Amino acid sequence: MEPRTTVILAAGLGTRMGGKPKGLLKVAGREILYRTMTLLQRNGVERFVIVTNERYAQLYREFLERHGFPAEVIINPEPEKGNGHSLHLAKGKASGRFVLVMSDHVYSEAFVERSIKGNGLIADRRPRWVDLNEATKVKVENGRVERIGKNLKEWGAVDTGFFILDGSIFETTEALERDRNGDYSLSEVVERAKLPVTFVDGLGWTDVDTPEEIKRARRMLVKTAIKGTGDGFVSRHLNRKISTEISALLVDWVTPNGITAVTFALGILSALLTLGNLPLAGILYQLSSILDGVDGEIARASLRTSRLGGYIDSILDRYVDGAFLALLAYSTLNEPPWYLIALLALLGSVMVSYSTERFKGAFCRDAYSEVPALRKLPGKRDERVFLTMLFLLYPAPVSIKALFVILAILTNLRVAIVVYEILRWGQRL
Amino acid sequence: MEPRTTVILAAGLGTRMGGKPKGLLKVAGREILYRTMTLLQRNGVERFVIVTNERYAQLYREFLERHGFPAEVIINPEPEKGNGHSLHLAKGKASGRFVLVMSDHVYSEAFVERSIKGNGLIADRRPRWVDLNEATKVKVENGRVERIGKNLKEWGAVDTGFFILDGSIFETTEALERDRNGDYSLSEVVERAKLPVTFVDGLGWTDVDTPEEIKRARRMLVKTAIKGTGDGFVSRHLNRKISTEISALLVDWVTPNGITAVTFALGILSALLTLGNLPLAGILYQLSSILDGVDGEIARASLRTSRLGGYIDSILDRYVDGAFLALLAYSTLNEPPWYLIALLALLGSVMVSYSTERFKGAFCRDAYSEVPALRKLPGKRDERVFLTMLFLLYPAPVSIKALFVILAILTNLRVAIVVYEILRWGQRL
Repeated sequence: MEPRTTVILAAGLGTRMGGKPKGLLKVAGREILYRTMTLLQRNGVERFVIVTNERYAQLYREFLERHGFPAEVIINPEPEKGNGHSLHLAKGKASGRFVLVMSDHVYSEAFVERSIKGNGLIADRRPRWVDLNEATKVKVENGRVERIGKNLKEWGAVDTGFFILDGSIFETTEALERDRNGDYSLSEVVERAKLPVTFVDGLGWTDVDTPEEIKRARRMLVKTAIKGTGDGFVSRHLNRKISTEISALLVDWVTPNGITAVTFALGILSALLTLGNLPLAGILYQLSSILDGVDGEIARASLRTSRLGGYIDSILDRYVDGAFLALLAYSTLNEPPWYLIALLALLGSVMVSYSTERFKGAFCRDAYSEVPALRKLPGKRDERVFLTMLFLLYPAPVSIKALFVILAILTNLRVAIVVYEILRWGQRL
Repeated sequence: MEPRTTVILAAGLGTRMGGKPKGLLKVAGREILYRTMTLLQRNGVERFVIVTNERYAQLYREFLERHGFPAEVIINPEPEKGNGHSLHLAKGKASGRFVLVMSDHVYSEAFVERSIKGNGLIADRRPRWVDLNEATKVKVENGRVERIGKNLKEWGAVDTGFFILDGSIFETTEALERDRNGDYSLSEVVERAKLPVTFVDGLGWTDVDTPEEIKRARRMLVKTAIKGTGDGFVSRHLNRKISTEISALLVDWVTPNGITAVTFALGILSALLTLGNLPLAGILYQLSSILDGVDGEIARASLRTSRLGGYIDSILDRYVDGAFLALLAYSTLNEPPWYLIALLALLGSVMVSYSTERFKGAFCRDAYSEVPALRKLPGKRDERVFLTMLFLLYPAPVSIKALFVILAILTNLRVAIVVYEILRWGQRL
């Protein structure tokens, strides 16, 4: 059964962050807890219990009210003691299987989706976004925690701060309450309970202790926020590497729609530039193609995706491509036969997108997910734009004619293959 | 509660149809009962009871087996007696609310959808597809059947052969069994029970008694099988009137995919003809646009719609339009500025469809249903094709240039308005 309740430990005084509650720090435009709680809700969690200190309680209550989260705030009057006691205070509030999570950890969508299906301590054998000096290491034996701590010499994985527990954990905290007079860490609870370990390796998560680490978390969110099923070769190996860096820089400051508008303007500008300076037009076109990934990355990283945003983005992309090819043909071609090629290249360029989008319209499913053979098929927008830029770097009449011929064949052939593959898929249904 | 059971009266000997069971006659490529039962299943019916005679029982059993319908066959050993007794034989087989329907009546999708929500006798005050001399008339008083019969002088509606009943009807048949020694018609049951009446007016239904009436039923199915949310002015007032007549002629003989292929070939031929004879090219283009409705009409009328078929049709339409505009531009235009207009007209022509289809891809809903303001917006394909034909009837360089200018503005302006309306719709969400 999937956990319906989540306990959040948020009593730590966060001395290195200016005394602000770390769960309310914004990373990629959203409070850390907004993100964690939203992702948990999407995965079936219905109720939250936040254990915090007297100083932060009011701030957390305002936050919960603002976003309408179904949560209860419990106060730990002695936050300076170990955080094991904070967990103990949630006793009686969480029944059945429940999630335990830290308020200062930032998790990606994929991480939460996978981890919520785990059991016990969720550990990462290939942590990508944490400082190993600061990380809590875990030694695992026979699928259970053998030892846990920051200074372990021998260890196999790192504690992600994400747990799937059940009521039996409170027997352990009960014992520690007696033995340690209420001052014991969560790690001590974990070690004494010999929690089972589930490995969730290499996905996006990190913790935030210093302002520097906020930047790292932001970058992690953007880098893990690529959808990418429709990405071509150039996008995977070049555009995304650059666009995610731009997104990481901008995610706190701009809206996805703002980026969409700038990308469109840049694309139209590049089309107009074909009337003057072809190499520059090509380079600007490629830049707009890189920037074209940023709106989606920022939207996903800041949990602001909108179908309407994707719709508008897609329409504008078609117009940028259409304007670029039309004006390039206008400024470089003279004879009707070459215009015929240009018309076919423009038609094919829109139809590449039409052939997969129309599939979604008909079947309500993503063509690339349903028909994986389409993924590696060349001719996607990122590839066409890059190719166009290359041909325009040293423009000559013959190379521009060659570009139009290649685009006309590449795009329309791709559409024919897409239709063929979709027909084959339809027969297998 | 929606009816889960349907009783079908199929014991009549059908003397005027060569003694074949009428429920198994094919209309628009499907047995009458296949259609009725499929439509009822789509509307929640789970179980069928077919009352037939000894001669037909085996044929009906084979039919049920072939299509895998969950049905039971009951034999009326005295089919020459009135059909009220056939209903009585279903006693104990139908509990709660159930549908009673005649095996020789052909119903459209819309009729079944509406009628199944009714109560008692479903009557039609504006029957469009029946011979009033042969029809069973109903006199209604206070919402109930007062009199019913073929030769009523005073009547307000026609019996559609479709009923929503419950177990209490068998009290009436029980009484008639005693009074009439098992020989009484369904009409007598209806009249004696004073069934409530639900009016479902003007929708597609008819009965089949003679070969002539099979043709009428076929035509009814085609005429009521227009989806039409995406139809423009020319389609509604011209193309559909012709295409449905073609569909009615062809529905028994051709597959939707066959028509799609012919339509595509005709469209490409019309595009090639722009290189030779412009008026003829335009006329052929318009003919292919008319024929473009036939595949969908035949598919719907014969319950053979397929999303894949719609997908392919849509891709091919874009290529016909693209080829027509590209070759028309190639054969009539000479100067780069006019080619720029042609490129924009071609881009806009594909984008008209892209802008509504991409909406479906994003939202899994039909743009015309969600945003009704889009329905009356000019610039749909049927209108563009018709306009193109008009301009090509007396082709002159200036009129062709005017055509491209009009198409470039009309299509791209339409896309802009579509996007604007969809954005407004998005804000209301």
